[in-house]
Amino acid sequence: MPLVTLTTDFGTNDWFVGTLHGVILSKEPRTRIVDITHAIPPGDIRAGAFALKCAAPYFPKGTVHVAIVDPGVGGLRRAIAVRTASAWFVGPDNGLLSWAVPDGDIRSIRSLENTKLFLPRISHTFHGRDIFAPIAARLTGRFNESSLGAKLNCMKRLPWPRPLETRTAICGEVIYVDRFGNAITNIAADLVAGRTGYFSGHSPRAWRCPLETHYGAVPPGRPVAVAGSSGLVEVAINQGSAARKLRLRTGDALRFTPST
Amino acid sequence: MPLVTLTTDFGTNDWFVGTLHGVILSKEPRTRIVDITHAIPPGDIRAGAFALKCAAPYFPKGTVHVAIVDPGVGGLRRAIAVRTASAWFVGPDNGLLSWAVPDGDIRSIRSLENTKLFLPRISHTFHGRDIFAPIAARLTGRFNESSLGAKLNCMKRLPWPRPLETRTAICGEVIYVDRFGNAITNIAADLVAGRTGYFSGHSPRAWRCPLETHYGAVPPGRPVAVAGSSGLVEVAINQGSAARKLRLRTGDALRFTPST
Amino acid sequence: MPLVTLTTDFGTNDWFVGTLHGVILSKEPRTRIVDITHAIPPGDIRAGAFALKCAAPYFPKGTVHVAIVDPGVGGLRRAIAVRTASAWFVGPDNGLLSWAVPDGDIRSIRSLENTKLFLPRISHTFHGRDIFAPIAARLTGRFNESSLGAKLNCMKRLPWPRPLETRTAICGEVIYVDRFGNAITNIAADLVAGRTGYFSGHSPRAWRCPLETHYGAVPPGRPVAVAGSSGLVEVAINQGSAARKLRLRTGDALRFTPST
Repeated sequence: MPLVTLTTDFGTNDWFVGTLHGVILSKEPRTRIVDITHAIPPGDIRAGAFALKCAAPYFPKGTVHVAIVDPGVGGLRRAIAVRTASAWFVGPDNGLLSWAVPDGDIRSIRSLENTKLFLPRISHTFHGRDIFAPIAARLTGRFNESSLGAKLNCMKRLPWPRPLETRTAICGEVIYVDRFGNAITNIAADLVAGRTGYFSGHSPRAWRCPLETHYGAVPPGRPVAVAGSSGLVEVAINQGSAARKLRLRTGDALRFTPST
Repeated sequence: MPLVTLTTDFGTNDWFVGTLHGVILSKEPRTRIVDITHAIPPGDIRAGAFALKCAAPYFPKGTVHVAIVDPGVGGLRRAIAVRTASAWFVGPDNGLLSWAVPDGDIRSIRSLENTKLFLPRISHTFHGRDIFAPIAARLTGRFNESSLGAKLNCMKRLPWPRPLETRTAICGEVIYVDRFGNAITNIAADLVAGRTGYFSGHSPRAWRCPLETHYGAVPPGRPVAVAGSSGLVEVAINQGSAARKLRLRTGDALRFTPST
Repeated sequence: MPLVTLTTDFGTNDWFVGTLHGVILSKEPRTRIVDITHAIPPGDIRAGAFALKCAAPYFPKGTVHVAIVDPGVGGLRRAIAVRTASAWFVGPDNGLLSWAVPDGDIRSIRSLENTKLFLPRISHTFHGRDIFAPIAARLTGRFNESSLGAKLNCMKRLPWPRPLETRTAICGEVIYVDRFGNAITNIAADLVAGRTGYFSGHSPRAWRCPLETHYGAVPPGRPVAVAGSSGLVEVAINQGSAARKLRLRTGDALRFTPST
């Protein structure tokens, strides 16, 4: 069954998302559409890239992932479709797709240029509806890949912030704050697996917490670091919000200090 | 495949929307249901009418559009189903459906009176679940139209605010503010197509911006008017929010002054 | 057609809900998934239990209801699947399922222990994805119930706050405040059906309103009590919000005083 996912900053207050569904179902009525999220902060390409990277591995082979966080809509940025061994990724070429698609996984990249595949009238402000939705419907079926547009050698990539390992600590940062106020870091859980130690930071205020296996290993209201569900360490408050209590935000520095 | 859309002010915090899906799928399990939006401000019939008008044209022929913004629920307002050449529209007869259904498109209007088509117990507060959802499921299939209820000659219409063209300007207003803070006006893009000039207003504060083809034609943070995706001019801030920066709200007056 | 519903506190800002859909569709591509709500306040088991209780009766026989409000995730609480005559209910054994499943309806309860039915890697923080979603997909089809895990004799129950009937009044409380600001009480509509009288409270401020059949029976802006759609009396403001105007919150006391 054709499956399309949507990850956007459109919000769900207006008719934008429903309209994407309408266009896709008009072109390919059997499509199953899954909304990954439409609450990416407006224009926040990194947050969109991270959400897509976390969700995409859990979808069946052949899924078409559409991501639209597109502050440059109507300007000169390219629109692309990227094929991997297991899925298609479609969106603006602004780095949004790049964390979900490691270089080694890419089979081909196409510039979306064939206006025959778009809606008849292309607005300057809603390429999701006019370009990406009809392309997504097309990608769920059989088609000649070269009909999409020119083959590209590369796509724009967002740099992934790598943690810095020193002799005494691993220095990282908050990469995403989720709905529960958990601060997801760029430090892979594997990097600290089996070790004991503590996480700490001092921005905007000093905090420190142990590395544990689950939230409940500390009393309610206390901070704790755990291996999160995306394979990254996250800093949390048991039954609370690290975003609120520790004031953690994306980009805040932190470090892991192993027990000696 | 039967397709039903939902446009309501129910929000998604409670179980209301899920319950609509449940009732529809209980009656007609194959139905595909698309949520256009459930975030219409409570009781804001105009916002609901506008969302439905913008989204409905992008759905396949035969779609059943259910819209529920119904401050008069349980009172004397009628419930109606409107058939056009391409779709059904179902909801309270309070003007909500009227912008999506121009008079010329209407094939028939039925008053929903046949209680056999409703759920067995009709609450006074949730006609979406008890009346509109089961009716929508019914409308996706074959049925005798007269079984719905009495044929009506007209439905309640919301007046569409027409812009006023003077010798020196086109005077209009903000008709909807979207999630990005773009202020959508009642001035058709066709009315200003190919012309140069500026948009301006002085409520709540004075502002002025050029008419351009896309947001990025002005520097980030600057206001710009563009032809929006619904065929209406919208006032935006490139990479920002006109609602926040210019404080624009629905109903605010503005004007287009062509270059001389 | 296999049908799964989701009721969680995951919010829709992140990729969590989309990921649940992905896992379910990976295991059972034909599944229809309905999101009842994902906006249960984080960790609010009672709100989740109430939403599930209100929505579940409106789904077709055979539906698999997944509910996840799970502040104890990763700790020692059990995960369970409960079979009734008409549906499956799946979630943590913390009382969340208990209002939707009266004791008399239960056919069997299973502890979810068979790791072969889970995803290969179980995180400590996202059992929704790793345990409940794959189990839900499994429950939509044919399978040997004993493969789930041990049979249990009981599940954790949340006490339902019963109203207190005195000689002169019925004393109750607010059990849920919905999106419209309606304060749903624990007083069954049947208990006051056909009677006249008024509802009142004095927390946080004194208020009083008549029992009527629909919101519009009082002028706009005035409080009114009506039989709500879930069979419970709710206190509302006609065309307004009781939560805002009367400051009503979950747990606030109120009473019904019949006319003498």
